[in-house]
Amino acid sequence: MGMTMTQKILAAHAGLPSVEAGQLIEANLDLVLGNDVTAPVAIGVLEGMNVDGVFDKDKIALVPDHFTPNKDIKSAQLCKCVREFANENDITNYFEIGEVGIEHALLPEKGIVVAGDVVIGADSHTCTYGALGAFSTGVGSTDMAAGMATGQAWFKVPSAIKFELTGKPAKWVSGKDIILHIIGMIGVDGALYKSMEFVGDGIKYLSMDDRFSMANMAIEAGGKNGIFPVDEKTIEYMKEHSVREFKVYEPDEDAVYDETYTIDLSTLKPTVAFPHLPENTKTIDEVPEIKIDQVVIGSCTNGRIEDMRIAAKILEGRKVAKGVRVIVIPATQDIYLKCVEEGLTSTFIKAGAVFSVPTCGPCLGGHMGILADGEKAVSTTNRNFVGRMGHVTSEIYLASPAVAAASAVTGKISSPEELGL
Amino acid sequence: MGMTMTQKILAAHAGLPSVEAGQLIEANLDLVLGNDVTAPVAIGVLEGMNVDGVFDKDKIALVPDHFTPNKDIKSAQLCKCVREFANENDITNYFEIGEVGIEHALLPEKGIVVAGDVVIGADSHTCTYGALGAFSTGVGSTDMAAGMATGQAWFKVPSAIKFELTGKPAKWVSGKDIILHIIGMIGVDGALYKSMEFVGDGIKYLSMDDRFSMANMAIEAGGKNGIFPVDEKTIEYMKEHSVREFKVYEPDEDAVYDETYTIDLSTLKPTVAFPHLPENTKTIDEVPEIKIDQVVIGSCTNGRIEDMRIAAKILEGRKVAKGVRVIVIPATQDIYLKCVEEGLTSTFIKAGAVFSVPTCGPCLGGHMGILADGEKAVSTTNRNFVGRMGHVTSEIYLASPAVAAASAVTGKISSPEELGL
Repeated sequence: MGMTMTQKILAAHAGLPSVEAGQLIEANLDLVLGNDVTAPVAIGVLEGMNVDGVFDKDKIALVPDHFTPNKDIKSAQLCKCVREFANENDITNYFEIGEVGIEHALLPEKGIVVAGDVVIGADSHTCTYGALGAFSTGVGSTDMAAGMATGQAWFKVPSAIKFELTGKPAKWVSGKDIILHIIGMIGVDGALYKSMEFVGDGIKYLSMDDRFSMANMAIEAGGKNGIFPVDEKTIEYMKEHSVREFKVYEPDEDAVYDETYTIDLSTLKPTVAFPHLPENTKTIDEVPEIKIDQVVIGSCTNGRIEDMRIAAKILEGRKVAKGVRVIVIPATQDIYLKCVEEGLTSTFIKAGAVFSVPTCGPCLGGHMGILADGEKAVSTTNRNFVGRMGHVTSEIYLASPAVAAASAVTGKISSPEELGL
Repeated sequence: MGMTMTQKILAAHAGLPSVEAGQLIEANLDLVLGNDVTAPVAIGVLEGMNVDGVFDKDKIALVPDHFTPNKDIKSAQLCKCVREFANENDITNYFEIGEVGIEHALLPEKGIVVAGDVVIGADSHTCTYGALGAFSTGVGSTDMAAGMATGQAWFKVPSAIKFELTGKPAKWVSGKDIILHIIGMIGVDGALYKSMEFVGDGIKYLSMDDRFSMANMAIEAGGKNGIFPVDEKTIEYMKEHSVREFKVYEPDEDAVYDETYTIDLSTLKPTVAFPHLPENTKTIDEVPEIKIDQVVIGSCTNGRIEDMRIAAKILEGRKVAKGVRVIVIPATQDIYLKCVEEGLTSTFIKAGAVFSVPTCGPCLGGHMGILADGEKAVSTTNRNFVGRMGHVTSEIYLASPAVAAASAVTGKISSPEELGL
């Protein structure tokens, strides 16, 4: 029986000629990831295991990004725990404030993940690296601890859903809109424990940043992972960012999929997910007048340089609406510097936005823009659960950077087209 | 009996020909200030007073700067309270995220305070505006409420200490070093309820940013206020920033001072205040090797453009020491933009520092760089009390931006001269 992309990667890492959906396997890991929230728990578990250090100091990434720069004493203590562990174990890929960025933007940028890898991370959005043709998935801190100790993890091999993407997206339709459309179509449990395998000739129109954004939100449909084929853009990206060798896995022609969806990207419109689930999607033309208090442009979903460029293009020469707080958060220091040097940062500040240190911050209700009762935010982040960004009566509308930036100007949920763009 | 600068301003605002130290007066207020921490308390008090709104919507400033962008739900609720009050009362000088900065840098920059004003603020560092030749002092939230209602406040007229500044400061000796030297000399209660009146021909060598930094820390010697004479630099600053008329008050020749100190600025050295009091000063040559974990460059004391320029000059082409977190926080959006456009922000990022949204943040243990147990920070802020910046066992060393930036590079408390500068 043929294998999917995901199954092929898992088989190779389990040392098996083939695997099939539902099979339990132990796979070798190319990278084990943790952040300031999850790594301290894993470190505690590891210390209780009575093992001699970590399996490979080069294959662990520790990224303090959630409550940093330290939000409070608790977060300072968590970061200290991670820092000390990294020092004691001489962890290659530990990132201090000033180097750090949001983990899922940082690792591809630093070339630590490439096509064909198996990556586990104690963070649900670890699925992001599927954009590179890697198998990556979120795990709990205990699995992270076991992974750090042994370099292996067990998996139940997932079955897959095929998303055949065709056609070219219209202006202002980004990867974020496509993945929101898909989640709206299949629901937040539509891909439960399944691989979301994106294929088709529409992919060539998607930038790497589009693909990162899409793979990132596979988990919002319940997916075990999201994964893209490796094409010229992927190879160009990896050559620019990494010195590691990569391996391309293509699905077998007779690979088995639970379902196949064909999506003509040219028919999609900018899409917004209404409170309180990512599946509550409306296209922008279906959105009634909804006044907003805050706009957040950033996160592991949409804090990359293209996201910044699109937002800046819309804010250039414009002002944010009176009474709306606009918080722009580049995902990494490199993206931050690019924004400064390309003039995007000036554009944001002149428009009346603030430009933050890289951090996960408001996305998970951490800091840097928490909502009060009843407040409404348009956010380029990935989850709009009840209370996710602050008070339980606050509301989050998930959107693309283009829609978020346009909404910042009008003060209500808007398409860039409302600004004549 | 002759009056000091402060006494003359207070007499004029009390409608009295003269006042003397110890006299109780009621003075008219030119400005009443509150922030996101103190204004909500004052608003609550005001609402209990059963008065009809505020005395003058143009003479109240509400500046949400301490825990913003909203650190958590509590801070979001406090900001919401201030925002709603500002909207209901049509407060002219309410500043939203994207316009806001640290209050004591923001108000002079926006031209809201000028020479001759009487200003109360529900924040101890309100004394900053003495740099402009204004009388300004910190009050509690109840006095702020009464001030918002009536436009008046009562004062016990302070006696004064005269600081006669002579000579030209050496390279790397800034206003921060001078005020730390003074606090070291007279102690944290050395000017208790007194005016610190700075005079002398050494003042002409001090930039406005030096003077803001010095007046700002008058409270750290227990002073009721700190005040500078108005000279050409002051007038130039006010003309650049304000359209308001200002009034210059000079001390009478026979003004009475409790004490007079003469300080030859040319003899001073970069000065560091050791934990846990600003009076625990050592000159930089007396400082033993002290390794540090964090550097903070910012705050109402040292987050102005000159501070940024000095820090950037030292960090230009250099890297922060491995393991040291360096957090640079421009005090306002205007300063932020200047930093971006002058290339300072690029310098900071390339050196491995982060560049934050304007906020009081770590200075008061708020957010954006809180210390874990046992951690040591060099900080350009104003207080190094136990636990001020985080854990009770953490330590803060107060210094100038030059010393802070040099320390960032070496990883221990250092003079720029150690870098050959």
